[in-house]
Amino acid sequence: MARVVVDVMLKPEILDPQGEAVLGALPRIGVNGVSSVRIGRRVELDFDDDATDLERQTRIIADKLLANPVIEDFHISVAAEDAA
Amino acid sequence: MARVVVDVMLKPEILDPQGEAVLGALPRIGVNGVSSVRIGRRVELDFDDDATDLERQTRIIADKLLANPVIEDFHISVAAEDAA
Repeated sequence: MARVVVDVMLKPEILDPQGEAVLGALPRIGVNGVSSVRIGRRVELDFDDDATDLERQTRIIADKLLANPVIEDFHISVAAEDAA
Repeated sequence: MARVVVDVMLKPEILDPQGEAVLGALPRIGVNGVSSVRIGRRVELDFDDDATDLERQTRIIADKLLANPVIEDFHISVAAEDAA
């Protein structure tokens, strides 16, 4: 099995109200010193042992299904690959 | 600035309908060989240069604000730390 992880985050210029809400709540739980909170999605894909071309296939999935290119960037990392 | 990343994923035994929907859509876009899709959250926290005890503070944030311990696990990684 080979695991590929896609991180999908809002582009830096796009406001993140969910992150802002967490940032605003931090002083109430006694945490100071955080300057920014951004919240995105982490997608874990498990490929079969005999799958090939994982990064290219994952790019297709991210482009078509996982990320909105108008407001989001994504980053692909092949996290673990066991030889079959 | 020091960046800490919190990955929040559903526990393995919890059904992930969003991931299942993506998995079910893959053959329609010509991708085969994926056996599992799980979708969670990626939270990026930027701490000020003079912040200390980042991992302990991040654990407090994750416990109290970011993850629901009944159905979710989280993993903390200190991604980048520039010396002030």
